[in-house]
Amino acid sequence: MGDFAHDQDWRVLVAAKKESQQSAIPPEWLIDSKVLHELKQCPGGRLLEPSPAKKSTILTDEELEITERYSATDLLEKLGKGELTSVAVTRAFCKRAAVAQQLTSCLTEIFFEKAIERAEELDNYLKQNNKPMGPLHGLPISCKDTFRVKGFHATGGFLTNLKEPAAESNSALIDILLDAGAVLYAKTNVPQTLMTADSENHIFGRTLNPHNLNLTAGGSSGGEGSLVAFRGCPLGIGTDIAGSIRIPAMCCGVYGFKPTANRLPYAGQTNPPGLIRVPGSIEPSAGPLGHSVQDLRVAMAAMMQLRPWLYDADAYDIPWRDPLPLEDAAAKPDGLGRKLTIGILPEDPAYPLHPPVRRAVQTAAAKLEKAGHRIVWLPPDADREVGLGMRIAFQFFGVGWEGGVPQLAEPPVVSVAVGSHPFSKDPPPVPRDPSPIRFLGKLHAARGAFADAWRRAWKENGLDVVLAPGALSPAVPLDTYGLPTYTVMWNLLDFPVCLIPFGKVAKSLDPTPVKALSAFVPDYDPEALDGAPVGIQIVAPHLRDEECLQAAQLIDRDIRSSVPERER
Amino acid sequence: MGDFAHDQDWRVLVAAKKESQQSAIPPEWLIDSKVLHELKQCPGGRLLEPSPAKKSTILTDEELEITERYSATDLLEKLGKGELTSVAVTRAFCKRAAVAQQLTSCLTEIFFEKAIERAEELDNYLKQNNKPMGPLHGLPISCKDTFRVKGFHATGGFLTNLKEPAAESNSALIDILLDAGAVLYAKTNVPQTLMTADSENHIFGRTLNPHNLNLTAGGSSGGEGSLVAFRGCPLGIGTDIAGSIRIPAMCCGVYGFKPTANRLPYAGQTNPPGLIRVPGSIEPSAGPLGHSVQDLRVAMAAMMQLRPWLYDADAYDIPWRDPLPLEDAAAKPDGLGRKLTIGILPEDPAYPLHPPVRRAVQTAAAKLEKAGHRIVWLPPDADREVGLGMRIAFQFFGVGWEGGVPQLAEPPVVSVAVGSHPFSKDPPPVPRDPSPIRFLGKLHAARGAFADAWRRAWKENGLDVVLAPGALSPAVPLDTYGLPTYTVMWNLLDFPVCLIPFGKVAKSLDPTPVKALSAFVPDYDPEALDGAPVGIQIVAPHLRDEECLQAAQLIDRDIRSSVPERER
Repeated sequence: MGDFAHDQDWRVLVAAKKESQQSAIPPEWLIDSKVLHELKQCPGGRLLEPSPAKKSTILTDEELEITERYSATDLLEKLGKGELTSVAVTRAFCKRAAVAQQLTSCLTEIFFEKAIERAEELDNYLKQNNKPMGPLHGLPISCKDTFRVKGFHATGGFLTNLKEPAAESNSALIDILLDAGAVLYAKTNVPQTLMTADSENHIFGRTLNPHNLNLTAGGSSGGEGSLVAFRGCPLGIGTDIAGSIRIPAMCCGVYGFKPTANRLPYAGQTNPPGLIRVPGSIEPSAGPLGHSVQDLRVAMAAMMQLRPWLYDADAYDIPWRDPLPLEDAAAKPDGLGRKLTIGILPEDPAYPLHPPVRRAVQTAAAKLEKAGHRIVWLPPDADREVGLGMRIAFQFFGVGWEGGVPQLAEPPVVSVAVGSHPFSKDPPPVPRDPSPIRFLGKLHAARGAFADAWRRAWKENGLDVVLAPGALSPAVPLDTYGLPTYTVMWNLLDFPVCLIPFGKVAKSLDPTPVKALSAFVPDYDPEALDGAPVGIQIVAPHLRDEECLQAAQLIDRDIRSSVPERER
Repeated sequence: MGDFAHDQDWRVLVAAKKESQQSAIPPEWLIDSKVLHELKQCPGGRLLEPSPAKKSTILTDEELEITERYSATDLLEKLGKGELTSVAVTRAFCKRAAVAQQLTSCLTEIFFEKAIERAEELDNYLKQNNKPMGPLHGLPISCKDTFRVKGFHATGGFLTNLKEPAAESNSALIDILLDAGAVLYAKTNVPQTLMTADSENHIFGRTLNPHNLNLTAGGSSGGEGSLVAFRGCPLGIGTDIAGSIRIPAMCCGVYGFKPTANRLPYAGQTNPPGLIRVPGSIEPSAGPLGHSVQDLRVAMAAMMQLRPWLYDADAYDIPWRDPLPLEDAAAKPDGLGRKLTIGILPEDPAYPLHPPVRRAVQTAAAKLEKAGHRIVWLPPDADREVGLGMRIAFQFFGVGWEGGVPQLAEPPVVSVAVGSHPFSKDPPPVPRDPSPIRFLGKLHAARGAFADAWRRAWKENGLDVVLAPGALSPAVPLDTYGLPTYTVMWNLLDFPVCLIPFGKVAKSLDPTPVKALSAFVPDYDPEALDGAPVGIQIVAPHLRDEECLQAAQLIDRDIRSSVPERER
């Protein structure tokens, strides 16, 4: 802890920040205090079940319809044709986001007024030019707090950043969204340090999971996951270096896509103080969260259309290939007719899956096989094991921090305080070397060997994608999420991954509690987790983002299908 | 110098190696000693002018025709249709390479016998299957010595490697070439350390430039440049981390393409001892040398068709986009109809160009403007200056070497001995930091700022490509090449670059000698350099390899054209 902990000014700063945040919500959008209390007292913490947006009485019927009935793809079509105005759509999502904020604390910076002004401009543009401004014309989009939006803070949940002036320029991806015609209206909450799966910090408090207020919303893009789940946005943008898009997407039961890093630009983010960006280490990745794979595809295609390299020299300058060329004779025009070869990630015996997660993977594999895809149960292989990938990844993270951990100038929140890594007591996969450069070289070689084992698995089995569990566990009780085992390995490899929500915990189906084998891994508690969303990950090789989403869309359809085999 | 210098065994090992190399050339392909002597005594060192292949009397008329009349593209077409057999084509190039070797010492490992066996297999395959084995069916291709070919050495010119056993597996790119149906028949010479522009080492001696035996052939892919110039191969493969494909291509007057690193796989190369591959540093790039841009495009498309990631986990897994989608209405089906916006790299005042190089750039720009392209003379900008890019690049290289320079266990050759970098006396662009990791982070940031300045130049001017001089100088007298100023900056940025030979030094046009401003930069000596090839570089952004070659092909056509403007 640095000087900041001894500086009591921060309480004053935080109080002022909270006050200004609250005042950014128009008074007529504040939920009646009695209704608010009732909604928060929902049985079992299941906020979404009593239709909270409707019960809040803040949204009109049309606004409920706009926010509930349409996908982002639908909205873009209607906005582009002028069948819905951007003002109407923006106001609807601003109101719903305001309701979400009052119930789950999912937002950080709020700029509804500016958003509606911008929506008016876009509506005028469409009228005058008879064409949309860009591929995201008029669509309200939320983003994680770490993105800089000119005129607003980007504290990233760090108290010290409250003393910084508001951002004077936009992050590269924010400029892309604006040039594509999107409307920005709010930023969303994150964990202190950005490195835990509980989105709590000393400025904006803790974001709750609308599926179950007693379980974590995930992190670090937890505000985004919670807001999407509440349908407070049609699309959101998060970032992911160990699972930070996929974990909240899974915890909150929504879709999330972690592209290959630098496919979308990352430039201009708030990063944890003390973090050194080590070239060629593990790169963070910006990507969308939303309500369907189709929406994620549309979002990616739209952002990529602006040619990200023109905004960020670190972004790959390669066009987005979507729709993909047809790859077999049976393919339909959208590419969704083809049959896939899908490898199933073997469970790591040191990190066994919670029973509902294991069930989700098995059910998905069975459904996909029935739908005619080739399923390959990959044999366990020590060279490409989940735990090995995680341990190499954590060694890379260690190199990027001066002294090995984030330099916090403030008291840790609970999830940060408990987040020490038990495997640091075991011998690390790459032995320390007195020369930091030689050590980096050895880490690089260790990742190379891990990547090579995965390459061989792909080549030898003719895989299109790998299907992996969304995480070791479903959403778990607050501050117990633990290690990002099954997600961070894909960041190490820099493979694109789509998180698909699939199934829910049912204590009737998996009634037996299970103790975790390792420290800092949650136990399975059927009572506490009952009803929590479960998910799967669809993984493609480095830079095969387009194929990843195509396969995910196909898989998402087929795992929900109950059509008999012979009719397919 | 390590122990090896004290170990006199190396003279015995080298003698044995030279003996086995010589014996790999069939006796009937050895040039009569009198003829050999005459050819080597060519006036002004201009080996190519008296038609040495013909005068050697080793090749038949048909073999002269095969090696002189056809491009690689033509040969592939004829081989695929069975109009030429692979045995005939392979034998022709083996013989011509044998002649080249006797005159210029361009080869290292020689395996003509195996090549002809392989060619027979391919001819049989075509007969039996009525289709080619792959996109390079039957074509003989040479490669730089650093590629590993099973059963042969890959010493990379390092004496210590003579004690190593022959390679037990192929480099990834060698497997791709074989799977694509190519025939390998020889590897080509390199400089000691792989880090100078004079391809001389203690095992294989010095490779000469067939345009002028008194001038350097360039390096580090110098054997490749020399062999291509002699038409001893239809296509060759080199590697480039500071100019090692482009420098020999320019010195020898042939075409060369340095792709974005990891577009083609680099795995399985011989690297200098003591080199640590620092993740995210400057990556070496494998790429083709050949007789036309069209041949380079065909070679890239063919190799990329094999999906390099399946061979090397470090290779980008992105398809080759060629032919490109048409980009304007005037475009012809091959994409060659469009007009480009071409930025001209400003000269660095600290590293002024030799007059014939400056003339080549100016002539090319004038011709391109006449042909209807938009020419933008980029203003000088300290943030994206040639010398700055070079100095950052050299700081990156320094991090990768234990102790700052290659660890040589043998006496240095002249070009290595003279190759100290004078700018190491000036303050480096990135100040040293006691923490190697922080230093790496700062280097990374410095490169980021350099890349960002170039991104802005591209965006603000709507550039397609940048036209740069091929190097500061043409081919210069042996061991005087000096710094890779105008080439290494593009490695720092990891931009794809095509080297186009354009023009020759003429002492009548540029008669005045010029003294270099810096140490380790060659003077301009019109007498010595008269007739030497000059070149230009065509540069596209990171991963725009396809656009780079497309533009280079268009530019190559238009700079040679004398069609009046109004008729175009």
